[in-house]
Amino acid sequence: MTALDLTTDVVDLTRALVDLPSESGAEARIADAVEHALRGLGHLKVDRVGNTVVARTALGRDRRVLIAGHLDTVPAAGNLPSRLAEGRVHGLGACDMKGGVAVALRLAATVPEPAVDLTFVLYECEEVEGERNGLNQLTPEVLAADLAILMEPSDAGIEAGCQGYLSADVVVRGRRAHTARAWQGVNAAHRAARVLQRLDDHTAERVVIDGLEYREGLSAVAVRAGVAGNVVPDECVVSVNYRFAPSRSTADAEEYVRGLFPEYEVRVTEVVAGAPPRLDRVAELVEALGAVPRPKLGWTDVARFAALDVPALNYGPGDPSLAHTAGEYVPVGQLRACERSLRAWLLR
Amino acid sequence: MTALDLTTDVVDLTRALVDLPSESGAEARIADAVEHALRGLGHLKVDRVGNTVVARTALGRDRRVLIAGHLDTVPAAGNLPSRLAEGRVHGLGACDMKGGVAVALRLAATVPEPAVDLTFVLYECEEVEGERNGLNQLTPEVLAADLAILMEPSDAGIEAGCQGYLSADVVVRGRRAHTARAWQGVNAAHRAARVLQRLDDHTAERVVIDGLEYREGLSAVAVRAGVAGNVVPDECVVSVNYRFAPSRSTADAEEYVRGLFPEYEVRVTEVVAGAPPRLDRVAELVEALGAVPRPKLGWTDVARFAALDVPALNYGPGDPSLAHTAGEYVPVGQLRACERSLRAWLLR
Repeated sequence: MTALDLTTDVVDLTRALVDLPSESGAEARIADAVEHALRGLGHLKVDRVGNTVVARTALGRDRRVLIAGHLDTVPAAGNLPSRLAEGRVHGLGACDMKGGVAVALRLAATVPEPAVDLTFVLYECEEVEGERNGLNQLTPEVLAADLAILMEPSDAGIEAGCQGYLSADVVVRGRRAHTARAWQGVNAAHRAARVLQRLDDHTAERVVIDGLEYREGLSAVAVRAGVAGNVVPDECVVSVNYRFAPSRSTADAEEYVRGLFPEYEVRVTEVVAGAPPRLDRVAELVEALGAVPRPKLGWTDVARFAALDVPALNYGPGDPSLAHTAGEYVPVGQLRACERSLRAWLLR
Repeated sequence: MTALDLTTDVVDLTRALVDLPSESGAEARIADAVEHALRGLGHLKVDRVGNTVVARTALGRDRRVLIAGHLDTVPAAGNLPSRLAEGRVHGLGACDMKGGVAVALRLAATVPEPAVDLTFVLYECEEVEGERNGLNQLTPEVLAADLAILMEPSDAGIEAGCQGYLSADVVVRGRRAHTARAWQGVNAAHRAARVLQRLDDHTAERVVIDGLEYREGLSAVAVRAGVAGNVVPDECVVSVNYRFAPSRSTADAEEYVRGLFPEYEVRVTEVVAGAPPRLDRVAELVEALGAVPRPKLGWTDVARFAALDVPALNYGPGDPSLAHTAGEYVPVGQLRACERSLRAWLLR
């Protein structure tokens, strides 16, 4: 088993984590290494659920903070092993989110007596279907906390809350015909022009919550029509993805999309609530970190905590727009800044 | 080898041909049977090229008529073996075009001294890519004739000439973005609304040649866009199929389509000329058959003969709209009518 040295520098630790490949579904090796390293610390109670490792202090503090990071990455893209160059750690998952995991592990190892009780959750399968997500395998009791910090890349700033999302198929129907007698049919692809034009004309709302703007978006992400090269298609399916402000419930979001396409069949294939920023409940941390909160555009596991009424925010090293790119990296400065700021806050 | 009895009734012969499965590319068995039956006749010189059988008289007549039918069918659809019910032969290829082939073989067997020299061409691979078509494997000398009759289903009427067709991809471009920040991209699917609306608004021309209306048609046959469920697509491809009157050249047709979409990349993937009806050159046959010519809507191998300057028409039993359907059939009355009319003309 690869041994992780949690007393080493956060940069070396990030590189060691990157060099432990852990594509979603294949996290056993990295989970073994993380579990072994945490069990060696003494001040933490360590549990393992699948390839998710949970480590908790039990100091009897009146508040508990949960710090979470996922161990898995998307598939490699020629970006292994790790590489340190020009103040950046490059490599698979460096940004999303081995850098954040390294910070969490450094805090676990080096802050044995924090001002609050801590729960560290290093989990599997975040990059795949929600049902497989390691957080989904844990009970609400394990996830219970007064505050959760998700170490997702947020450029070492605070990204609060997150958008919800809805996926739906808008189905446009017609009638098949041979293209040599096209007038005998009704071309569903031609009729889909109205759906696509409506999307093009649509102005997404800009919803402000706690001073943060959760700009919405409604996009066609796929269009599918086609029977054969000589057939007028009788169906055209426009798949839309709606990113909605956390002030909307999933029911609101669904009603909104259905309302835009009242004359078509709308099949909602997935809808997931967002998370409101709840800045009132994270004010102390925000102030301590000295960062100006930004709205999280995109969906993250903070929504899972919101559903459990645990206020949560994203705070981690790395530019989120680099996630899942072959060239992803994490700046050394951000690794150190996150570790330093959180340690200071935990030791306050 | 299955023996075909060409002295039998055209209905029994149609059924025997249907019961010899001959999906495109697997015509060896039926071609063997046809070749063997024709070689047994004595008054015909028989050649074989691949799975195409050519049989010719050499009576020194001053005119030569070519009678052609393809041996292959589309794949079976639970419609074998053949079945005779309510005056119809049902089964794979009954309509397209074993019925027409049966008529041709009956004429080959029973008209040893026609008023014109005859060339019978029973060919392979009509239902697949044009390069594989059996007619394509024959030299212009073999196909030379003063008139060609294609026994394609035309409801025992005359369908003259045929439309040309053009396939092209109209490419709409945009710029990718994450759907959580959709405004950073340009949605190619949304922009494709204009292409589809233009197709919907388009009025196809109606071109009259020799009194026959070759109604054109321009159809989207496929729309493809989609990168991932959370990505604003940067490309949307609308595949169009243009059926054009035989008065247009392929260059005209291409210019016409490009002219409709001047602001987009248009990739022409295939363009095939049609065939003008040339009723002046088929007048005698039309009169003899006593049928009112109709325009052929769709493309058939008559265009190959037109390219060789051989006037050609479609004349065969079966409703063309039943071609390629699981329920295809050919009416017994049409089988007999076609055989009777052509025999009378050949013996005139």
